[in-house]
Amino acid sequence: MKHIAILGSTGSIGSNALSIIEANPEKFKVHALAAGSNIKKLASQIEKHKPRLASVADAKKAKELRRIISGKTKVVHGVEGAMEVAADYGSDMVLSAMVGAIGLEPTVAAIKAGKNIALANKETIVTAGEIVIKEARLKRVKIIPVDSEHSAIFQALRGEKHKNIKKIILTASGGPFLKHPKNRMDNISIKDALNHPNWKMGKKITIDSATMMNKGLEVIEARWLFNLPAEKIEVVIHQQSIIHSMVEFCDSSLIAQLGLPDMRTPIAFALGYPDRLKLDLKSLSLPQMKKLTFAEPDTKKFPCLALAYEALKLGGSTPCVLNAANEIAVNAFLNGKIKFTDIPRVIEKTIETTGTALMKSFTDAIDCDRQARVYASEVAKKIKR
Amino acid sequence: MKHIAILGSTGSIGSNALSIIEANPEKFKVHALAAGSNIKKLASQIEKHKPRLASVADAKKAKELRRIISGKTKVVHGVEGAMEVAADYGSDMVLSAMVGAIGLEPTVAAIKAGKNIALANKETIVTAGEIVIKEARLKRVKIIPVDSEHSAIFQALRGEKHKNIKKIILTASGGPFLKHPKNRMDNISIKDALNHPNWKMGKKITIDSATMMNKGLEVIEARWLFNLPAEKIEVVIHQQSIIHSMVEFCDSSLIAQLGLPDMRTPIAFALGYPDRLKLDLKSLSLPQMKKLTFAEPDTKKFPCLALAYEALKLGGSTPCVLNAANEIAVNAFLNGKIKFTDIPRVIEKTIETTGTALMKSFTDAIDCDRQARVYASEVAKKIKR
Repeated sequence: MKHIAILGSTGSIGSNALSIIEANPEKFKVHALAAGSNIKKLASQIEKHKPRLASVADAKKAKELRRIISGKTKVVHGVEGAMEVAADYGSDMVLSAMVGAIGLEPTVAAIKAGKNIALANKETIVTAGEIVIKEARLKRVKIIPVDSEHSAIFQALRGEKHKNIKKIILTASGGPFLKHPKNRMDNISIKDALNHPNWKMGKKITIDSATMMNKGLEVIEARWLFNLPAEKIEVVIHQQSIIHSMVEFCDSSLIAQLGLPDMRTPIAFALGYPDRLKLDLKSLSLPQMKKLTFAEPDTKKFPCLALAYEALKLGGSTPCVLNAANEIAVNAFLNGKIKFTDIPRVIEKTIETTGTALMKSFTDAIDCDRQARVYASEVAKKIKR
Repeated sequence: MKHIAILGSTGSIGSNALSIIEANPEKFKVHALAAGSNIKKLASQIEKHKPRLASVADAKKAKELRRIISGKTKVVHGVEGAMEVAADYGSDMVLSAMVGAIGLEPTVAAIKAGKNIALANKETIVTAGEIVIKEARLKRVKIIPVDSEHSAIFQALRGEKHKNIKKIILTASGGPFLKHPKNRMDNISIKDALNHPNWKMGKKITIDSATMMNKGLEVIEARWLFNLPAEKIEVVIHQQSIIHSMVEFCDSSLIAQLGLPDMRTPIAFALGYPDRLKLDLKSLSLPQMKKLTFAEPDTKKFPCLALAYEALKLGGSTPCVLNAANEIAVNAFLNGKIKFTDIPRVIEKTIETTGTALMKSFTDAIDCDRQARVYASEVAKKIKR
């Protein structure tokens, strides 16, 4: 029996994880849940799974939640509440599925408490990859990626030796604007940007897919998760999102993981690891698909991808700044404050403004993240509309 | 240092294996070589690798060979000679790469002597799969497939549990006649049938690819190598031969092995197993390929594939009969005695004539093989041209 704590239980990943857990009651028990402001959904999750502990955004939400739930679940709140959920004695694995850099502190708390991590919050690694990986090694904590691409790489590397990796190839659907005219990218509406062709996901990550920053963050994530330099990480456009990613080895053999796009597969893989869970999902039929297509990414049209590689090259605090500036910029776009093409402009300008600093600790990372947000907000305000 | 014996050293697989061995002198030493009648090529291999032992087709060839080689290599001949090469004390692994059912006895000798097998001779498993696998288990011998499809499956299964396999999917290029009009299959010439679009291989296997019997034999081989019933083995047409095969697991996740079609990859994998060798081959570029296509196989147009599934279903001696009849039929076609479309007719008729018997031992298998050849030759002679 695995006891699971979930950071971000009311989001898309968290909810899917809970339904997988529900379908496998002999394998899993929910130990603790952390959510934001969706009290109604969290309350129904608490009624069903009876966790020992639940955390919400703030004191007001906590009070609300206490009023509507029955049972003995202890309710806490804020970053400290989420950290308590992450580190509470009695769980074996923490699913880190909050959205954005807010996931960093609770995830680090989980690692420090020696919990294995099912990692969906890529910002944790993007913001403080080197430090997180070092800490995980120290605590002998396993980090199993939930992102479909990194799960694919993780699966492709089973039974293989790190020294034999020639490169990894992250596939990218190219998002909704793959075939959008290059000179009309600045007219893109919020609605169009939220309309992803293959994956149903939260708003932030859907915009990241549209700008291809999502792939950029994944490149940075892969750099740390798989301990490979940027030049060994390639991105290939694969519109159908069937091959989720692949690894090329020293003998020119490639191992790929494939499937219909369904986040339940990587979530279940991470929860069940090292075993595979039985999932009642539709099988991929390649004859039905007829073809899979591939192309080089266009980093002129999608400058966010190039910015991510550049941030990795600059190193130190730059990936953290990139990620923070991206969150601010995406938010500004979703609030109608800036144009789609302003997103990379805000990020680039913020990186220029902050410069690159050394990052030695989680405190450094959190400070850097906060400062970058301040800068990025200023940059976003100054953008000419 | 691995000491290798090669059955079929002058063929395409054997020669490629020797060049891989030559490129890795710190990892491999050639212990013994068995070939057929290509004395000149064998002599040059002996000069280069100085094996302890070499075997040729017959006494006359042995005499010839002794005349032209220097050094201390002991020369033997015939099936007994090949068996001596296979079982000789001092080798760790035997590459079984003879063409056709003639490879069975030496391969069995190698297994009985406890040698790990790099298996390219699929007829060994098709003829006597159940018995071979039982013997290999008994002797704790590892059988590592060299066929690109089975090597792909073997690689995809690394670190996975057998119970989690939902099905395996063997890819098939469809051979040179994938798009040939269905009603004009009987006019196919020997030259056209020998012109495979993706793979450079020996004549027998090239014709087998053209009839798709090759895929049928691979289905039977997979049944025993991976201990799966026929209904868990699918064939998908994939014209570009880039995805070499794949496994679907219980969570709907598929693992595939990919690469440019080059037999050196699976040969090197088998020789180097469990480690991967460094090969200086061209990397696959999917953006350069642009697309990969997939389709269901047409078993009306390629009845040999359906015959193989049928033989598996009938079980017992039938796969052995199928394989023997196929060898006779392919030979008759290559000698201009029967038409392309007569190949499945000869096989079907031979299976009908012999019926299905139990097979309990290698002797049973060898007897069955010999008898089926006699029947098949008679059937082939009677075919109306």
